[in-house]
Amino acid sequence: MRQAGRYMPEYRALRAKHSLLELCKNPDLAAEITLQPVERLGVDAAILFADLLLSPEAMGMKVEFVKGEGPLLHNPLRDLAAIEQLRGPECAADLDYVCQALRQLRKALRPEIALLGFAGAPFTLASYMIEGGPSRDYAVTKRMMSCEPEMWNALMAKIVAVQSQFLRNQIAAGAQAVQIFDSWAGCLSPSDYETYVLPHTQALIAALAGRAPIIHFATGVSTFLLAIARTGANVISLDWRVNLAESWKIFPNLAVQGNLDPVALLFPLNELRKRVEELVSSVHGAPGYIFNLGHGVLQQTPVENVRAVVEMVHEYSARDAVSA
Amino acid sequence: MRQAGRYMPEYRALRAKHSLLELCKNPDLAAEITLQPVERLGVDAAILFADLLLSPEAMGMKVEFVKGEGPLLHNPLRDLAAIEQLRGPECAADLDYVCQALRQLRKALRPEIALLGFAGAPFTLASYMIEGGPSRDYAVTKRMMSCEPEMWNALMAKIVAVQSQFLRNQIAAGAQAVQIFDSWAGCLSPSDYETYVLPHTQALIAALAGRAPIIHFATGVSTFLLAIARTGANVISLDWRVNLAESWKIFPNLAVQGNLDPVALLFPLNELRKRVEELVSSVHGAPGYIFNLGHGVLQQTPVENVRAVVEMVHEYSARDAVSA
Repeated sequence: MRQAGRYMPEYRALRAKHSLLELCKNPDLAAEITLQPVERLGVDAAILFADLLLSPEAMGMKVEFVKGEGPLLHNPLRDLAAIEQLRGPECAADLDYVCQALRQLRKALRPEIALLGFAGAPFTLASYMIEGGPSRDYAVTKRMMSCEPEMWNALMAKIVAVQSQFLRNQIAAGAQAVQIFDSWAGCLSPSDYETYVLPHTQALIAALAGRAPIIHFATGVSTFLLAIARTGANVISLDWRVNLAESWKIFPNLAVQGNLDPVALLFPLNELRKRVEELVSSVHGAPGYIFNLGHGVLQQTPVENVRAVVEMVHEYSARDAVSA
Repeated sequence: MRQAGRYMPEYRALRAKHSLLELCKNPDLAAEITLQPVERLGVDAAILFADLLLSPEAMGMKVEFVKGEGPLLHNPLRDLAAIEQLRGPECAADLDYVCQALRQLRKALRPEIALLGFAGAPFTLASYMIEGGPSRDYAVTKRMMSCEPEMWNALMAKIVAVQSQFLRNQIAAGAQAVQIFDSWAGCLSPSDYETYVLPHTQALIAALAGRAPIIHFATGVSTFLLAIARTGANVISLDWRVNLAESWKIFPNLAVQGNLDPVALLFPLNELRKRVEELVSSVHGAPGYIFNLGHGVLQQTPVENVRAVVEMVHEYSARDAVSA
């Protein structure tokens, strides 16, 4: 999950002056935004401020962020020729601004704060590149996936090659772990995920083997968590639609991250505390559990509530360490 | 699922002349639209053309359908006084136009075609009434549910009373089964569903006990299917995010409906046939299986593909009956 965002006044102040892509492409600004929540919230790790669509843009997609409508890709991929014209792993060099931000961040952060890299998973990037933006039903993507295997495999292989290089570069620049976002995988059936998506995510993660821990993020994928556990990721991020402790039993040898409903951060503090304690106590301080939200912080969230949650988790860990 | 809709030219012709609420409130038109897909597609059952928001409007909500934006409720519920002012079960009499349509339909339909009633489940209606329309995060609803139990329980009890009367009336008017739509339940955690929603859906279904079979529809609820099986419904509708045959094992004593991905109806016929056969053969013609989509027909779907799917299912049932 992004830590910085519109719920923070200091982020809104920067966004008022710069477009999202400007913020991502300027290493000083990207590093500044990445740091904003770290001190303010007291979190244990910093996640690079970036956008999923940086790679597709480097590959040749014409990306625009339209106010109030989200991203628009002006040249959606509809045939093999367009896919073949996309740039391959050499374009990762164009994303060096991300690595510059990471290098700055590693110097700026206290050593005990972990620094996480950030990139899109092959399916989610492919869906943006095929649909031309977010989609309600992912109809064009699913059609290509199911009915045009040559196009689908060519596109996914190209994305995997680019993302492998991009993430290796991020790790070399100081990312101590990387989080891979398959934000839209929840539109898929278990069978489609396993057949058309899993092999490509596996290929991406295999290309990073031994370099840094990989966190896999997706939402709405509760019916194929076993497949997600087979991606090769070291940490599986869960959304709030699952019971975390129960789901963890599906992949007991992996670490797990999640899964407070972001809406709970809008509740009065006593109810918020109850939710946090229920979640944290459900895993009994087991090693391999990373507290997080199940999805990003909502824009209307009071910053003091985000900070309060971090404090609650730290209090709980301290208590738990004493009693353990 | 609605059978009629924008994918049918005869529906679009009527929608060009009338608003959605006009179509729902005119029994002749509602019956005409309900019948449109029955002959055209060759389906075995007809589902009443109606809208979830007819009941909230009768209760006192000011409902408007804004072109391109979906429904807008101008007086969202934010305090107990507003909830107490809502009308109770007596307002079901105002919805008699629905029952008139059902009476006409029962006369017009061949006797072997089942007629299904249609109504919203308490949570989904409450979320519309609290948020003032559809929502990305259901933040106000979840906050009321978790932090304002008096308001939440008063609202849910009132909706249950209205929907119980409304559905009893629909059954008396000729509905041989009723489908209850909890369209937005997928935003909930398993624990929130069980604590704040299940008891109210159970109360609604208990109020209809013995009158007609109840079909429960929701999407994105795969992590709490066991709770949904405890609503008292006779048939559980599943979306395409689950493996239907596997999920059916969770509630082997209930019937199951679903769950073809509506996007498959945009595929070439050979791929579409493969998907239909995979699904239908996965349940081996077991009694209690009702073929359906996992969600509504997409607007861009060719009508001939919907008809083709109905034919494929009928062919398969005929073959299966021979070999069984």
